[in-house]
Parts: sequence; structure tokens; C-alpha cells
Amino acid sequence: MPASFLGEVFGTMVLILFGNGVVANVLLTQSKGNGGGWIVITTGWAFAVMTGVFTAAALGSPGADLNPAVTIAVMLRGGYDVGTAVMHIVAQFIGAFIGATLVWLTYLSHWEVTKDPGLKLACFSTGPAINNPVNNIITEVIGTFALVFIIFAIFSADGATGGSPASGLGPYLVAALVWGIGLSLGGPTGYAINPARDLGPRIAHFVLPIAGKGDSNWAYSWIPVVGPIIGGAIAALLANALGM
Amino acid sequence: MPASFLGEVFGTMVLILFGNGVVANVLLTQSKGNGGGWIVITTGWAFAVMTGVFTAAALGSPGADLNPAVTIAVMLRGGYDVGTAVMHIVAQFIGAFIGATLVWLTYLSHWEVTKDPGLKLACFSTGPAINNPVNNIITEVIGTFALVFIIFAIFSADGATGGSPASGLGPYLVAALVWGIGLSLGGPTGYAINPARDLGPRIAHFVLPIAGKGDSNWAYSWIPVVGPIIGGAIAALLANALGM
Amino acid sequence: MPASFLGEVFGTMVLILFGNGVVANVLLTQSKGNGGGWIVITTGWAFAVMTGVFTAAALGSPGADLNPAVTIAVMLRGGYDVGTAVMHIVAQFIGAFIGATLVWLTYLSHWEVTKDPGLKLACFSTGPAINNPVNNIITEVIGTFALVFIIFAIFSADGATGGSPASGLGPYLVAALVWGIGLSLGGPTGYAINPARDLGPRIAHFVLPIAGKGDSNWAYSWIPVVGPIIGGAIAALLANALGM
Amino acid sequence: MPASFLGEVFGTMVLILFGNGVVANVLLTQSKGNGGGWIVITTGWAFAVMTGVFTAAALGSPGADLNPAVTIAVMLRGGYDVGTAVMHIVAQFIGAFIGATLVWLTYLSHWEVTKDPGLKLACFSTGPAINNPVNNIITEVIGTFALVFIIFAIFSADGATGGSPASGLGPYLVAALVWGIGLSLGGPTGYAINPARDLGPRIAHFVLPIAGKGDSNWAYSWIPVVGPIIGGAIAALLANALGM
Repeated sequence: MPASFLGEVFGTMVLILFGNGVVANVLLTQSKGNGGGWIVITTGWAFAVMTGVFTAAALGSPGADLNPAVTIAVMLRGGYDVGTAVMHIVAQFIGAFIGATLVWLTYLSHWEVTKDPGLKLACFSTGPAINNPVNNIITEVIGTFALVFIIFAIFSADGATGGSPASGLGPYLVAALVWGIGLSLGGPTGYAINPARDLGPRIAHFVLPIAGKGDSNWAYSWIPVVGPIIGGAIAALLANALGM
Repeated sequence: MPASFLGEVFGTMVLILFGNGVVANVLLTQSKGNGGGWIVITTGWAFAVMTGVFTAAALGSPGADLNPAVTIAVMLRGGYDVGTAVMHIVAQFIGAFIGATLVWLTYLSHWEVTKDPGLKLACFSTGPAINNPVNNIITEVIGTFALVFIIFAIFSADGATGGSPASGLGPYLVAALVWGIGLSLGGPTGYAINPARDLGPRIAHFVLPIAGKGDSNWAYSWIPVVGPIIGGAIAALLANALGM
Repeated sequence: MPASFLGEVFGTMVLILFGNGVVANVLLTQSKGNGGGWIVITTGWAFAVMTGVFTAAALGSPGADLNPAVTIAVMLRGGYDVGTAVMHIVAQFIGAFIGATLVWLTYLSHWEVTKDPGLKLACFSTGPAINNPVNNIITEVIGTFALVFIIFAIFSADGATGGSPASGLGPYLVAALVWGIGLSLGGPTGYAINPARDLGPRIAHFVLPIAGKGDSNWAYSWIPVVGPIIGGAIAALLANALGM
Repeated sequence: MPASFLGEVFGTMVLILFGNGVVANVLLTQSKGNGGGWIVITTGWAFAVMTGVFTAAALGSPGADLNPAVTIAVMLRGGYDVGTAVMHIVAQFIGAFIGATLVWLTYLSHWEVTKDPGLKLACFSTGPAINNPVNNIITEVIGTFALVFIIFAIFSADGATGGSPASGLGPYLVAALVWGIGLSLGGPTGYAINPARDLGPRIAHFVLPIAGKGDSNWAYSWIPVVGPIIGGAIAALLANALGM
């Protein structure tokens, strides 16, 4: 097991605790952030990324992928061997499941008073504003392409980050990138842009005893897995082709 | 008395002046920020932390705890002896009381025109969205665990901070962390995550001649003290166990 | 062709994908950010600038103009010869067209359900709140003057940026500048402040098969081209005159 | 005349262009940011400070006061002689007047369609939410004390700023400080915290041919002059007493 395994587990746990936590705060009945809107959700996800990256880096994963689409893209560029990539992805799913469980615990009083099961599922996994698999996949491909391509750009260009996500300004800049993706590209599908961020909490939604929950919308579940992997792979291949 | 005593007094004073000030701005009748919502409250608390940390550091407390849960966690990791920790906590309560008094003075025209005593208390201390002591404690434990664990992560991982909260990017990064905690984990209890931030202003609410105030909700007052101490202690022990 | 051509293409593509994307998110029917308001739009444009600058810099354009008004202003100060400036501007228009096309694809399900053609055009190009060519030009001149003059100031004054937009804090600071321009000066015309940002997507709006689109408001199209060029030129001449 | 005169003129011009601009955007009828709320106003003022500081620094005023209360406080600590302080203050009033004139021009179409003269005055100068001179003065004293005291703290404590507002992170940190003051302490009086910011634009409001303007509320005009000077002086004396 790579030394970075623990970092990916805890980093993804923090990512999901903060990321899904802000959705719960905005959507669940009687929560103090209820109705806070898109600026609250996207700002919360930004700091979810920042705190997740710092946590991962402090526990041995300086690359701080927290996202199978990132891990696969780095692997495609030669940054990881397959075994390391697989272990990162396993770690990310474990962390995502734990993080989603912590969100459930944090908002324990609010599940029963929230009547709409769709709002409860949205605190775990994304869903489309308008259901259209082809269009939804396109959105997730473009969003994840932007995520991965610009991560490569930031750590290629920026002297202040020392080329590493976890030092200097890096974690804040990646947070600002995800802030931007949510604000600009999150409208149609809720910007999963990360298979572990979507499927891990969906499994948690399925198994946890959430008061008054509905189904876990498995029919949609493949889109936020496949779309991000494609988008990240395109970004990796293009970055290689452009010598970035 | 440690040299850091003064820093903890003034830093916590600034923390509470800005932090409780933003709640007053959003909740009090006729205030210009009235109805500004969760994004205003959480952004205000973020800069409350940043300004408090700079103030504490400038006056001799480079660690800038401003929070008994942080002080105890640092002590558990061997960073302070018991005497220093006790003096920091005393300083934090003194600063919190002064800060709350300054909030009262800043908004002096607005207490009488605000009719709901609950809104007035909320400008001093937190309260639960749904009253359930066990669930409320869980929320405060998780929120403070996240605060303390990620503070340790930031100053372990980040080269730009030089390992100290008060140099380089440190104060801004801790502000962003608290921004995230408010956005993501603040929904059920209003994220006290700090015994001095809650109990100090509650005492101020009790003794100050606030126009038309109600009771100080002492029944809830132990939760934002005990929960944060437990959460911070768990973070300290886990950080030690993981060698972070 | 200068080595920076590719950087200007991809950087402007990213600028428009994020910048016009956030407008689509806020304006298009059923989008999750619908109704998010001015804070969402301006924050999204800020990170559009940041991500565009990082992308341009990583692909060979460390100056990261992304804007003909900036390119011309730099040329007027002797930073580019005419040939380089022309190629930068060509690249910016190509990038803006591709970026607008990606916005159309990202929001593919949302064009048909949005009934107002004016909202759809606003996802591509700016328009005036109150139609008055002289006043609209004045607004764009002042906005672009502020953009270019303060860019020169930032990279003149700030040690942390090393004098280059693409290193250190630079991209984030320019993002914050555009954040401010949107918040403060964007009210009357929607702050084009960039001929490529406005005319490139307007051409895309004209040629793309957008469901239920209306006309492309060519009558207004010259204002966000001419105004920014004048504003940037004034900034360049004043910066020279002041020895900045 | 000190070399910093020009920097104070242009820096304060930019401060007021952005700062009063965001108020105009939120308050004036048909402006695209109309109704954007307190988060828009406070964020706009934050970047007004950042851009003003960069501008002042680039034009020879590395201290970038932009505020007579800051200038006087620095003078009280021995940083300026009286002549320099007087010239800074003159420059700040000139800059504020020009900046307010640029706001009037930027929003030229919007004055006539805005019917309430009070909203138009608010785009130039502050006014109290509840008129009570003693309480209003207290609020301005506390707000300006916080501004000046924490500026001293930031540039005392923070290695990353090199002790100077205009290098490194400094301008962004001061922007974040003013962001916080607006969010937390701006509710009762609109946080003038700067005599030039309030009186300069009030004079502009008085002399400019603003369509449908009302009176300039001279009865209140002394409070945002006297309050900030007192608050800044207290901060200077306390900083000296504490050896900060």
C-alpha cells in the first residue's frame, strides 16, 4: 500500500464532509443555512477542496488527488503506476463513504423534518436539473476536463506553488478553481466532476438509516462516474500533446 | 503570566467583535446588513478569525489560539504546559467578554427596535436549530474536530505558512477553514466550535443592560463548551496517533 | 506566429467558458444556479480570469492578455510589436469563439426551456441596462481604464508577483481586480471591458444552432469593442506619462 | 510636496470609484447589480481597498493611507511629519472628489430613473440607519479603531507582507480586513471609517449636476469625519502603549 493511502482516505473524507455538508446546510429543513443559495454551495465546496488537500498532504499524499478522475489523469501522464492509482481510488471511496456518514451525523436532527426525499439524496449525490443522459455526460466531461486541465496549468505555471498542490498557495488556488467550476459549469448537473464524490456518498445514502429517505437514483449513478473519467483523460492527453 | 496573555485577550476581543458583529448586522432590525443571510454571516466570521489571529500574533501570541478547544488540543500534544493553557483560556474569556461588549456598543441604537429577544441573544451566543442535546453535541464535536484537525494539517503541510499560524498565508488560510466550517457544518447549531466564543458573550448578555433582552438560555450553555473540548481532544489524539 | 499564440487561444477559451458559463448558470431556466444574482456572476467571472491566466501562462503566454484592449495597451507601452499584438488578438477571438461553443454544449438542455431570447443572448454578449450609446461608451471606457491601469499598478508595485501576471499571486490578484470591476462598475453595461469577450461570443451566438435564439443585437456590438480599446489606450498613455 | 502625493490622489480616486461604484450598482434603478445586497456592497468595498492600495503604491505612496484617519494615526506614531500628513490628506480629498465624479459618469443613465434622492446620496456618502449622533459616533470610532489597530497588527506580525502594505499579500489582506469591517461593523452607519471617503464625495454630490438629487445631509457630515479621526487616534496610542 502506498504511503499516500492514508492521506487519500482522510483528505477525501474531509472533502465530502465539507462538500456534502454545505449542500445539507442549504437544503435541509430548519438548517440555519437553509435557502442560502448557489453562492453558499459553491463557496462551501471550494473550502471543501482546500481543507481536503491540506489534510491529504499532511498525511502523506502531497499530490492530494481526492478524485479518481484526477488519479487516472495523472496516471495517464506517467505520474503513477497502475497499482498506486488503484490504491488511491480505493482510498478515495473509503474516505467518501466516511465523509458522507459524518454529514449524516452532523445533520442528524434534520433528516426527519425534511419531507422531500429528493433533497435528502441531493445531500449525498448529484442529479441532473434536466434528465438527458447525453447532455448530462457532456456537461460532466467539460467540467472535469476544465478541472484537470487547469490543475495541470496551475502547477505548471505557478512559481508560488512550487509545482505541488500542497505547498504554498496551491490548495487555495485549487479551491478557487473548483469555486469557479461550480459557479460557471455546475448548473446542469451539480458538478460531480469526481466519481468518488458521487458514488461513494450514493452508497452511503443506500446503506445508512436516513430518516424518510427515498431511492438512491442508481439509474443516474453511472454518469458522474463515466463523464469525469472521460473528461480527465481528455485533459491528460491534451496536456501531453501540448507539452504542458 | 505568559507573554502571550495579552495577545490572547486582544485577539479574542477582535474575534468576537467581528464575529458577533456580523450576526448583529444580519439579525438586528434596521441594520444595513439585515437579512444578508448565511453568506454574510460565514464570511464575516472568516475575517473575524483572520483579524483575531493577526492581532494575537502582533501582541505576543504567535500561536493565536483564541479558543480553549484549540489551547487544550495543543496542550494534549505537548505544546503548552497546564499553566500556560489555563492562562490562555482565562485570557480568551476576558477578550470574549470585552468583544461582546464592543458589539453591544457598536449596535447601540438597534437593540430597542429589535423586538425578538431570541435574535438579540443570537448576537451573543449560539443556539440549536432543533433542540436535541445528543445531536447538538455530535454536531459541535464534529465541527471542532474538523477545525482543530485541519489547523494541524495546514501548519504541518504548508510551506508558505512556515509552520506558524501568524506568518505568511496562515491567518488567511485559517479564516478560509472557518469560512468552510460555517458554510458546511454550521447549520444545526450555529458552529460555536469554541467555548470562549459562546460562554464569554453569554455572560456578557447576562450582565449588560441590553434593551429588551430575554433570558440567556443557560440550559444550552454547556453544549458549546463540552462539545468543542471533546472534538478538539479527539483531533489532538488522532493527529498524534497518525504522526501528523 | 509567436509562441504565445496557443496560450492566448486556450486562455481566452477558458476565460469565456467560465465567464459566460456563470451567466448561463444564473439566467437559464432550471439551471441549479438560476437566480443566484450579481454575487454569483461576478465571482464566476473572477475565477474565469484566474483560470484563463493560468492556462495562458502554462501554454506559453506569460503575459496572459486574453483581451485585445490589454494587448493594445501593452503594445502602446512598447511591450509588443504590431505583429505580435495582431496575432494575440486573432488568438483571443478564436479562443472566445471556442469557449462560447463549450458554454452552449455545457448548457445544452437549457436553451429550449428558456423562453426569453434576450436571456440567451446575455449568455454570450453584454447589453446595456439602459440603451444610450454615449453613456454606455463612457461606462466601458472607465471600466477598461480601471482594468488596464490597475493591472499595470499591480505588476509595478507588487513584489509577490515578480512583475509577471502568471507567477506567484498574480492570477489571483487580477481575478480579484475583475471581481471588483464587476461588482462596482458592471451595473450599466455588464462590463464587457474586452472586445474579444463580447464580439467573439456574439459571432458564436449568430452561427450556433441555439434553440429558440433571437437576433444577436449587432447594433450594440461596436460599443464593447470601441469603448474598451479607448479605455485601455488611455490607461497606457497615463501610465507612461506618470512613469508607472 | 512629498513624492507620495500623486499616489494618494490616484489611490483614493480608485478607492472611491470602486467603493462608491458598488453602492451605485446595488442601489440605482435598473442597474444590473440592483438589489445585490450587503454581500455585494462589502465585497466591492474590499476590492476597492485592494485596487486603491496597489495604485497608490505604484505611484509613489508605498504606505497607501488613502484615509486621513490612517494618515493621522501614522503621524501620531511618528511615521510622518505634520507637513507630509497634511499633504496626504489634501491628496486624499482631491482623489475622493475625482473618484466620485467618475462614479457619477459611470452610472450616468441611472440617476434620472432612480426616484429616491436618498438612494442617490447614498452612492456618495454614508448615513445612519438610525439617527443618533452619540451612538453613530461610537460606531464610527469602534470601526475605525478596528481598521487602524489591525492594520498595525497585520504589518507588525506578518512576514509575508514584509512590513509594507504594498508588497506581497499586503493589499489583499487589508482588503479582507475592510471586507470584515463592512460585514461586521457596517450595519448602523454604513462604515465611513474614513473622512475623505465620506466628505469628499459629499462635496461632489453637492456640486455635480446629478439628475433629481436632493440635499447633501450636511447635518450628519461631521460624524464620519470626527468619529474616524478619534478611532484612529485611539488605535495609534494603544498600539504605542502596547509596544506593537
